[in-house]
Amino acid sequence: MVLVTPASNSIENDTELSGGEASSENQAPLVIVGTGLAGYHLALEFRKLDSVTPLVLISSDDGAFYSKPLLSASLSHGKTAQQLCQTSAEEMARKLDAQILVHTRVASISPHSKTLQLQQDVDNHIADIPYDRLILATGAHCRKLTAIAGNAHARLFRINNLTDYHRFRTALVGCQRVLLIGAGLIGCEFANDLVQAGYEVAVVDPQEWPLASLLPEAAGRDLQEVLNNSGVRFYLGKSIRSLNKNPKGIEALLDNGETLVADIALAALGLEANTALAETAGLKIQRGIAVDRKLQSSNPHIFAIGDCAEVEGHQLFYVAPLMTCARALAQTLSGNPCPVHYGVIPVAVKTTLRPTTLCPPHPGAEGSWQVSQDTKGVCAEFRNSRGELLGFALTGAAITERERLISECMPLMDNKSFE
Amino acid sequence: MVLVTPASNSIENDTELSGGEASSENQAPLVIVGTGLAGYHLALEFRKLDSVTPLVLISSDDGAFYSKPLLSASLSHGKTAQQLCQTSAEEMARKLDAQILVHTRVASISPHSKTLQLQQDVDNHIADIPYDRLILATGAHCRKLTAIAGNAHARLFRINNLTDYHRFRTALVGCQRVLLIGAGLIGCEFANDLVQAGYEVAVVDPQEWPLASLLPEAAGRDLQEVLNNSGVRFYLGKSIRSLNKNPKGIEALLDNGETLVADIALAALGLEANTALAETAGLKIQRGIAVDRKLQSSNPHIFAIGDCAEVEGHQLFYVAPLMTCARALAQTLSGNPCPVHYGVIPVAVKTTLRPTTLCPPHPGAEGSWQVSQDTKGVCAEFRNSRGELLGFALTGAAITERERLISECMPLMDNKSFE
Repeated sequence: MVLVTPASNSIENDTELSGGEASSENQAPLVIVGTGLAGYHLALEFRKLDSVTPLVLISSDDGAFYSKPLLSASLSHGKTAQQLCQTSAEEMARKLDAQILVHTRVASISPHSKTLQLQQDVDNHIADIPYDRLILATGAHCRKLTAIAGNAHARLFRINNLTDYHRFRTALVGCQRVLLIGAGLIGCEFANDLVQAGYEVAVVDPQEWPLASLLPEAAGRDLQEVLNNSGVRFYLGKSIRSLNKNPKGIEALLDNGETLVADIALAALGLEANTALAETAGLKIQRGIAVDRKLQSSNPHIFAIGDCAEVEGHQLFYVAPLMTCARALAQTLSGNPCPVHYGVIPVAVKTTLRPTTLCPPHPGAEGSWQVSQDTKGVCAEFRNSRGELLGFALTGAAITERERLISECMPLMDNKSFE
Repeated sequence: MVLVTPASNSIENDTELSGGEASSENQAPLVIVGTGLAGYHLALEFRKLDSVTPLVLISSDDGAFYSKPLLSASLSHGKTAQQLCQTSAEEMARKLDAQILVHTRVASISPHSKTLQLQQDVDNHIADIPYDRLILATGAHCRKLTAIAGNAHARLFRINNLTDYHRFRTALVGCQRVLLIGAGLIGCEFANDLVQAGYEVAVVDPQEWPLASLLPEAAGRDLQEVLNNSGVRFYLGKSIRSLNKNPKGIEALLDNGETLVADIALAALGLEANTALAETAGLKIQRGIAVDRKLQSSNPHIFAIGDCAEVEGHQLFYVAPLMTCARALAQTLSGNPCPVHYGVIPVAVKTTLRPTTLCPPHPGAEGSWQVSQDTKGVCAEFRNSRGELLGFALTGAAITERERLISECMPLMDNKSFE
């Protein structure tokens, strides 16, 4: 029963208490900000090792557990945002024995008092919550378009989470022609998905071939040709000057004077780490939140994982390293310090019309691409002057080379151990 | 195919166009801001009469079609937010042959250019969309708590929409004791719902009896007694001074010095119309957006419907008048001007433990309550000095009097017709 203690603060002893709070009632919780794959996988790994420490997760969206990589491969399967939600936040709260605050933004971190300031639009009170250790899993945002003028920006979308996917799918109703801005990894996955879903797709990118920052030209051209044969129109080496409404939809003016007309536009220009919250705590930031191999930031009580983190100089927006990090950080947080080790991380690009696997070399690595090619696919190997394999890219039938190259490839991190 | 027109703006004629835009491509759309019951019911009624005019709906949330009144009666049925969603925005867009922009805020209205400025967090461009006629269905927000100090505001919730319901249900996981702030209509419905869902419920309200602004004391006390017998604890005539964390949950200090301890708090303090957007257009505002019986605001191209509107002085946060308005406004927007007429509007309070129906007199109406009562229920009639019935309230078995009183009761609006 709700207790009433007239004019005193004493608490009766027979109060039945609930959930995690009962077990260690004076302990500030472990707080995870973000419920994407990084936040939830860390929580799941942590609960395997520690069922007692109070755990709080905070999400600015509805906290649905879903697989982000599926967002660029689900339109052709007719999947709604609801169907992509694997587990609701409510179910996750039960499963994790955690408090989950959804539709809640963290405005700032006060590292001295070890509290977070929540923004809930509830009156004008600041809602503070304490943390014992804080894990930032705040993800990344889509790189912004710059220098595109025009009045059709209400028809321009991006997809970086399940909410965006829902927003785009809803806006797509009644549309036929999609203008894709960006021919990188996600752009090509969306082109592959949209054309198979029956849409007319045009892709514009200032680079000369698809995935130009990850693939050598031969592999990019191979992928381009197959997508083109399936109906995707590529406008490469070109930029969009303006995006304007016209009576039949929207009109993109390219820098060479060409005009493209479509019903809706989708931008896929790559990701940038979300670091604004970390900055409020004065953490060291590079491209992402700078963390060591124990995922510890410049503040010993604050860690970062996933797309928001730069782990000893590595910024990898893929699932595999995130899972490696979740297992290692769960150990560290449970009292068993465990540095991560990135080995060889191959990425399967979901261009199902032309299966593609890539294992990009570390940016700036010394070496060059060596390409062999036939009509069935491209095998490209990135080797340094000593002949060591630092990365590779495979398309079509050449992906059978995958295991051989993985076993030969140099790991991203050396094996030095940490204290 | 996506058109390419080299260095020109001409449009080929064979372009296949899609959706509503094709039919009247140069016509600015009818735009509805808000996808609650008011926005969607208006759109559905309008499409019965006009299948051609382009229609755009804009929602700041996910645009799910759901019945708001169910929010205060669904916890005991174990309903998740997803289960309460009857139709997704994507399905509604197909059904209505409309463009629906979800997770999109309207920052302002420019009545001179007849455009809306959208806030989509896409780059720094303002996304403008034009309207021919604009309908504001922006709803209402929960009245804010004032003068409650303390550090436990992160455990204080409100439920005004499906998102809030999901937020509260997720935060409720692991909780047992709920502090309800407010014993009005919605507060009593939540008390009824939560206690039947197995929670321990305490209700605090500065008024002396439940639904004090709508029910005479005898009817309020009757409802209170039944809820109290079911386990709801009432702290009436009392206010909360502060809400603080304590090691076992949260602690509310009342103005008489009593202390209540709970796991989570829910505030239900009534509604206030959302008028901020209307203010950007310089519309006349009273308690809500002031509209005449054609639901036309002080700007002839802008209408308002639902909880945001005050219709010739009437502000009714109920579903029945909203449906009346949706049918009438659909006629008006289709070229058949049709003023609304509010008759007798009885409200069934969803306190299932004690069925209650009320038909409140217009605030400030001259008259007094006449109460008859036995153990099975209360029948209260509000009559003026001429003996005319202006309102009534029925609890328990007395609700059998409902039809007789409805037929006798004076309508809220007279029957004068409009030009």
